[in-house]
Amino acid sequence: MKPLQRSFASADEVEAAFYAAFNRCDREAMADLWADDEVVCIHPGSQAIVGYEAVIRSWSYIFTHAELPDIQVHIVKRAVTEALVVHVVEERILTGEAIATVLATNVYKKYEEGWLMVEHHGSVMQVPTQKQVLQ
Amino acid sequence: MKPLQRSFASADEVEAAFYAAFNRCDREAMADLWADDEVVCIHPGSQAIVGYEAVIRSWSYIFTHAELPDIQVHIVKRAVTEALVVHVVEERILTGEAIATVLATNVYKKYEEGWLMVEHHGSVMQVPTQKQVLQ
Repeated sequence: MKPLQRSFASADEVEAAFYAAFNRCDREAMADLWADDEVVCIHPGSQAIVGYEAVIRSWSYIFTHAELPDIQVHIVKRAVTEALVVHVVEERILTGEAIATVLATNVYKKYEEGWLMVEHHGSVMQVPTQKQVLQ
Repeated sequence: MKPLQRSFASADEVEAAFYAAFNRCDREAMADLWADDEVVCIHPGSQAIVGYEAVIRSWSYIFTHAELPDIQVHIVKRAVTEALVVHVVEERILTGEAIATVLATNVYKKYEEGWLMVEHHGSVMQVPTQKQVLQ
């Protein structure tokens, strides 16, 4: 079951907490911002990890094995409704001397107690230096 | 600008039309199910393609250069609200003798005239044979 829970007044607040937790490799903070059920997380190249316990375990594994990253984020697009918000975010992740550009779809849902994360879908962008090749 | 538009009564109807269009490499059907603006499409490994014209151009490019695929889909998770629906879908794409497993986040939004697609984010799953390795 889910431990103590912070209260988030907006999807933007959850997202700020998400990237702060990711930057600090902070498992407890990460555990506080996901909804208690019906959540799904897809790390780059991974399968879909479903359910609160499994999702938090996956972040715990990453945080245990990773160097502290430096993550810069840029919101590409937002779809905002009263109860559900979807952000497409470009993440520039610097770990040691490696840089990866990840595109993430982050989904936030409004519950009685406030907003929480219900999905994170990250995938590595393989053509980061070329703009809009299909346009 | 967007051409003639079909009317979709639900997110599920849009999704059925999306995979039917994908299976048939049908540009016109694909063009009919995306919203007219604020849309984003991330093909596996690609950058974020933003805006209706660019998104349809990207599908047109794929359909022109691809063999007809055989796509089987399985919904992993749904987040459903009155105005916005998010599906996480596992796609098994058979093209010639190649099989790829793609995880997609599909986002549908309700407009006055009905439901339309506003995001497709696909990424290749690189560990398709191993279940829930992080659990």
